[in-house]
Amino acid sequence: MAHSLDKKHRLRSLSHMAHLDRVFHSLSDGTRRAVIAHLANGPASVGDLAQRHHMALTSFMKHIRVLEVSELVTSRKTGRVRMCQLRPDALAAAQSWIEQERRVWEARLDRLDAFVETLAAKEDANGRE
Amino acid sequence: MAHSLDKKHRLRSLSHMAHLDRVFHSLSDGTRRAVIAHLANGPASVGDLAQRHHMALTSFMKHIRVLEVSELVTSRKTGRVRMCQLRPDALAAAQSWIEQERRVWEARLDRLDAFVETLAAKEDANGRE
Repeated sequence: MAHSLDKKHRLRSLSHMAHLDRVFHSLSDGTRRAVIAHLANGPASVGDLAQRHHMALTSFMKHIRVLEVSELVTSRKTGRVRMCQLRPDALAAAQSWIEQERRVWEARLDRLDAFVETLAAKEDANGRE
Repeated sequence: MAHSLDKKHRLRSLSHMAHLDRVFHSLSDGTRRAVIAHLANGPASVGDLAQRHHMALTSFMKHIRVLEVSELVTSRKTGRVRMCQLRPDALAAAQSWIEQERRVWEARLDRLDAFVETLAAKEDANGRE
């Protein structure tokens, strides 16, 4: 039982890692970031987005696919138009990862500060002896 | 003058875009994210890091190069050992970009909420007439 929970946890964390891989890969392209910035203001059609980014529809669709695979964007065809929208909390996983690492880093800097202050206080005390 | 300032601004923003491309590309790999998480706790040698990630030194060095090119990590050889450390504010640009987009998105949701409330209030008022 514990073993199976362990395995479950490991699988979940592997799938979270793969999700982060895909999200950061999605964000590593200026056009895809611009599409996200656009969709943050509301849904848009693939045609409108492609035109705004001066791209042919076929090359632009590749970017949309990458955004969909990384679960940042969803698209749905209604009639002849494919509408895209940002997924709620699309950027939450990426943001949490970065915030977590910055917290660790800042905690380390605080410890270094405290250490340097202790050293300085000791030297001060030694000087006065 | 204004034209040259404009050009300067455009160049700076292009270089910021290229920087974000590289940072997010760096973060799109689980091993590189693990190295960042490790270095958030303090500097480490390339040898130690490679061993911890069960990688041959030569393949591992490729990851270190990517981290260096994206300006997340610096490394310096002292004697026979190459030491790596996280750059201060390494993740600041990525974090600001994500936070900015989430702010835009949340402002949009707030506007939608306000709009729905206005509609509901109007219907309420019409119903009472």
